[in-house]
Amino acid sequence: IEEERKKEVTALVTDLHPADIAEIMDDLNLEEAKFIYLLLDGEKASDVLIEIDEDDRRRFLKILPPEMIATRFIEYMDSDDAADVVANLDEDVQKEVLNEIEDLEQAGDIIDLLDYEEDSAGGIMAKELVSVNENWNVATCLKEISRQAEEVDEIFYIYVTDNNDKLKGVLSLKKLILNHTNTKVSKIYDPEIQKVYTNTRQEEVAELMDKYDLVAMPVVDEIGRLQGRITFDDVIDFVRDEAEKDYQMVSGIAGDVEPGDNVWEVMRARFPWLLIGLLGGILGAVVLGTHEESLQKVTELAFFIPLIAAMAGNVGVQSSSIVVQSIASGVKDIETPARKIIKEISIAVLTASIFAVLIFCYNYFVSGNMNLTYSVSISLFIVILFASLFGTVIPLILNRFKIDPALATGPFITTTNDVLGMMIYLTISGMFFNLV
Amino acid sequence: IEEERKKEVTALVTDLHPADIAEIMDDLNLEEAKFIYLLLDGEKASDVLIEIDEDDRRRFLKILPPEMIATRFIEYMDSDDAADVVANLDEDVQKEVLNEIEDLEQAGDIIDLLDYEEDSAGGIMAKELVSVNENWNVATCLKEISRQAEEVDEIFYIYVTDNNDKLKGVLSLKKLILNHTNTKVSKIYDPEIQKVYTNTRQEEVAELMDKYDLVAMPVVDEIGRLQGRITFDDVIDFVRDEAEKDYQMVSGIAGDVEPGDNVWEVMRARFPWLLIGLLGGILGAVVLGTHEESLQKVTELAFFIPLIAAMAGNVGVQSSSIVVQSIASGVKDIETPARKIIKEISIAVLTASIFAVLIFCYNYFVSGNMNLTYSVSISLFIVILFASLFGTVIPLILNRFKIDPALATGPFITTTNDVLGMMIYLTISGMFFNLV
Repeated sequence: IEEERKKEVTALVTDLHPADIAEIMDDLNLEEAKFIYLLLDGEKASDVLIEIDEDDRRRFLKILPPEMIATRFIEYMDSDDAADVVANLDEDVQKEVLNEIEDLEQAGDIIDLLDYEEDSAGGIMAKELVSVNENWNVATCLKEISRQAEEVDEIFYIYVTDNNDKLKGVLSLKKLILNHTNTKVSKIYDPEIQKVYTNTRQEEVAELMDKYDLVAMPVVDEIGRLQGRITFDDVIDFVRDEAEKDYQMVSGIAGDVEPGDNVWEVMRARFPWLLIGLLGGILGAVVLGTHEESLQKVTELAFFIPLIAAMAGNVGVQSSSIVVQSIASGVKDIETPARKIIKEISIAVLTASIFAVLIFCYNYFVSGNMNLTYSVSISLFIVILFASLFGTVIPLILNRFKIDPALATGPFITTTNDVLGMMIYLTISGMFFNLV
Repeated sequence: IEEERKKEVTALVTDLHPADIAEIMDDLNLEEAKFIYLLLDGEKASDVLIEIDEDDRRRFLKILPPEMIATRFIEYMDSDDAADVVANLDEDVQKEVLNEIEDLEQAGDIIDLLDYEEDSAGGIMAKELVSVNENWNVATCLKEISRQAEEVDEIFYIYVTDNNDKLKGVLSLKKLILNHTNTKVSKIYDPEIQKVYTNTRQEEVAELMDKYDLVAMPVVDEIGRLQGRITFDDVIDFVRDEAEKDYQMVSGIAGDVEPGDNVWEVMRARFPWLLIGLLGGILGAVVLGTHEESLQKVTELAFFIPLIAAMAGNVGVQSSSIVVQSIASGVKDIETPARKIIKEISIAVLTASIFAVLIFCYNYFVSGNMNLTYSVSISLFIVILFASLFGTVIPLILNRFKIDPALATGPFITTTNDVLGMMIYLTISGMFFNLV
């Protein structure tokens, strides 16, 4: 693309949607990307900047002077996106950029937003919204809305406040159009409104917006004054990111892996859990080593090592995943930890019994060695019980200590249960063969 | 709740949001639920019906006469929800219900929607939308919109069509309010509009709406005539459901497990994959059985069985998860299957080398048995290579044959790789100890 033929590139690029331009940017190097940015007009350039990857954005902003960031990008952005971009900068650059913003109100909004916790409603909301006073009539509203609408990308809902800025309810554009111009707002607005507080956690915001199918959710402060709004696109991104994180965790991948990533990036994400697997394997070898005598005398014992390990691993992953998912579902969760554990124990006892019987039947008819038959069955029973309990309790404990419970899914739980399973299996079979 | 004190219950329930009522319903039995339904007015009753679980809904509709379904529920619903409900009914009941609907236009819409594939844009869109002709002026538009808006819950966008009903662009309510009443629509609408076709797959619809942050997406037929629209709430549900399905698959859980489920429901979801694990374990025992002689002579070989199995399993799950996720991300996917495989092989060779060296060092310093040291290292190298390749190729093949590639994650790939790993390990070590 890069033959400095400015006009052609400009013509080509300006017709595209920002999201598409951002995708093209991903494949360019820093200098090429900068070249294209400078061709775009302010509005579009800032839209593209929001769409690109966080890492790429950080790298890109590093090569730009603070003044340019402020005047060419920040000033065209909504406050929530602007705050995200500013939060990405180094602290000294942050200050410079904020000072370069000409619109003082916008700079103030950004500073307000930076104060909120990143994962709270305050941290993801935008200050831009359309609100009307309950005492106005429809005609005044339309005029006011026209004025306010210039700063807001999409209106979605019109929020109704009282004289103290307290949120009273919501008014749909539809209602506004359907009513006569001298009707008072207080007569037609809907006072039943879902709202969240600036310190509400974003999981809960997402849950509520999903449950009530809301395009936007108003955010109020402790005494009910309207502070901002959160729109559905933030929620979709959040829902998707959370789901991907849990998925990757259970698959043993640390960090975000995307289709375009190179070999090193993928390696880095996969290595940690594999290393844990290796250490678990070595620990397993040590455990088996302490029972060398049993294994030497009854070689058949070794045959069932993979079976015990696999069942322990699978049961553990299932249990932990179910717990993690029910913790993640948050608001909906009606089961106490105690009830979760009791339910899991019932399931574990049933599962363990069924599989113990199945493997008993297999060994009874195939192997003929009764000591082996008994010890494999009994071990499997106990191993499944332990693995279930472990898989359930560890995420609950992590959650108690505010550590992401998803850490205890996937390879972690598999490895722990593998080693535990070996110990149980060899101890029990040792007892059966009177070798201990 | 159930003391037949109708008035009290009615007062209590009518103030709640449909989504909240649906949650309460979940805890009641069928008769109690029916009792509450009959207390609600039509609009609310049908909203609640849409919110409850699909299984519960099916059971509930079975005990109602077709005429009541049509007049008390369907008539108050948007066409997409109505079509979902009708699709849930038995075929003969479907016909009766459709005949009972008084509004023939609505009945026609439902029949149209039932014809589309369930997972296509046509299958999830609603017929209700607000559209205006490009030749109208703003005043006419406002009048028309008021009329059409009565049937539409939320307007979001106003679609602009030509005289042949072909979609030309979009008009925001904001623009409409900001412009003078005699301005022509053709002058102010935005012709750059994202649209999908009735046969576009819903994955792609979700991807596009997410990428372009759209609240609603218009759906057109093959020749561009406006047919309906898909709203963001359908997409959030879809994104969440897909993510949960993949997560549960990789955790070895078949079917949807929810916090409120009883022991049997959870058992049923977990049993299939555990059974596969058991069969894999038995197969592993058989494989080890065929190498009984080696194991008898060199007991230490058995020590590394868990290590080989664990590494094979973990590497396989990682590879398959990455492939499945990149397939699921659909539109964004810029890598061809061939490039995926090449990249995976590079990663596999690197990973395999690193871990082969690590385990070589461990054994070299700890075990002292050089034959064992060599055979474990070389086996691990080959096992990691195989496991990566397997984890990558099997989902790609399933995807080719239009089978959900997620089937090949989690326990399936772990089990396969366990058994394969055992075979490789014992064959190679057999060669080293000259026992074959």
